[in-house]
Amino acid sequence: MASKVTGTSSAEGSQNIYDTADFFDQYIKLDRQKLGLEGAPEWPRLRAMLPDSLDSLRMLDLGCGMGWYARYFAENGAAHVRGIDISENMLDKARALNKTDAIEYMKADLEELKLSEGEYDVVFSALAFHYLVNLPELIQEVSRALKPKGRLVFSIEHPIYLGPTKGGFVTIEDGRKIWPLDAYQREGLRIRNWFVDGVRKQHRTLGTYINLLLDSGFELTDFVEWCPTEEDVKRSPGWETEFIRPTFLLVGAVKK
Amino acid sequence: MASKVTGTSSAEGSQNIYDTADFFDQYIKLDRQKLGLEGAPEWPRLRAMLPDSLDSLRMLDLGCGMGWYARYFAENGAAHVRGIDISENMLDKARALNKTDAIEYMKADLEELKLSEGEYDVVFSALAFHYLVNLPELIQEVSRALKPKGRLVFSIEHPIYLGPTKGGFVTIEDGRKIWPLDAYQREGLRIRNWFVDGVRKQHRTLGTYINLLLDSGFELTDFVEWCPTEEDVKRSPGWETEFIRPTFLLVGAVKK
Repeated sequence: MASKVTGTSSAEGSQNIYDTADFFDQYIKLDRQKLGLEGAPEWPRLRAMLPDSLDSLRMLDLGCGMGWYARYFAENGAAHVRGIDISENMLDKARALNKTDAIEYMKADLEELKLSEGEYDVVFSALAFHYLVNLPELIQEVSRALKPKGRLVFSIEHPIYLGPTKGGFVTIEDGRKIWPLDAYQREGLRIRNWFVDGVRKQHRTLGTYINLLLDSGFELTDFVEWCPTEEDVKRSPGWETEFIRPTFLLVGAVKK
Repeated sequence: MASKVTGTSSAEGSQNIYDTADFFDQYIKLDRQKLGLEGAPEWPRLRAMLPDSLDSLRMLDLGCGMGWYARYFAENGAAHVRGIDISENMLDKARALNKTDAIEYMKADLEELKLSEGEYDVVFSALAFHYLVNLPELIQEVSRALKPKGRLVFSIEHPIYLGPTKGGFVTIEDGRKIWPLDAYQREGLRIRNWFVDGVRKQHRTLGTYINLLLDSGFELTDFVEWCPTEEDVKRSPGWETEFIRPTFLLVGAVKK
């Protein structure tokens, strides 16, 4: 049985699973941790939402983890990349594996992050926002921290994926393998067992995500419910289930 | 057993269920047909996406049915309302029940509609677009037909609602009543039995709808996955299931 997360979860809902050894040891064996961007099939679609040229840009990566994206940004011309994460384990790995002069890694809790006004051209975040209780406040901060016409590009677990009160496919009586939506419109905590028991995520509807952006001064520019191609599925048969329901939602927005 | 729709479905996918007697006799008994806007719980949210004042506006209603919305628009100041529908039955009812001097009802197939450039301030459509095979062409036409800063406001069956290959809730082994998503990313024909067998609808993902708008010169301004309030559910307990998954998606966009 997987161990339960303890000791790193505050009353406010902030949770740092990455600094529990049981979790971390397994997490770093994931393709997207071992291989970086090559292990993230949705990356090409996210990349397409960023400016074609990153030359001279000031960029922020929220929940930077081991720094694979930060390194890509720095190696592709960004003048300065700030990578923020709550996990010391992650930041140690990032500094060891993916450090350049243009990158500054910083420990901070996204639940209570404060940013300077008009500092960034691009704010990026991969698979972090769906852990946050205080996401509305963070999106407001991000809007403030972006220059006019600056871009916010992020991925999250798709609300269809995170919506059910329990994760996992079910085969029903008529033989269909289905994704059992049971509480899509009930937002809030979803507890998942992922390497360890008791990982805390926050379900929000698509409407809530989109309106958070629109209400914070953004124009929506990109919206991708990631799905593999038939070619992708031939190479990685496990992705076939993405046709049943999407795992990843990728979003791009520009500050008006 | 319900009768099968025949004779009114073209090779191109256009289908006019409303002019089959079996369907029509039952359809007009629905609250939203008998009571008009009072029978459409999502109407207040749709109304909020329209300009506050409709004074002097030129408006188009695509799939106007019995003309309840057209009448509202005309009675609230619109200078001219064109209501378009494929069904003679519907247009007869509209002309009998909901006709004013400002309204012009017209028979046309939305699958091949052509519109004049820059004619309308507002294009509206309630629960029609998810029947259309040629929706991309229609959205382009709508974009052309709107004045600059003109608005498109529409409702559809939510892609989560229309996505499954079969409709209907299922109770699974652990006791949960669920909505069985089995093919969300497989777009195309969904056949439903609704008063009659064989009603043809077109499933598209949320991403497809949003990108159709963005690619046709629109900015997304409103996005509501309609959900009743707890108060609504007390009055109409049948709506409780809306918390499991949304039936209606309401969208507002402005021509850039």
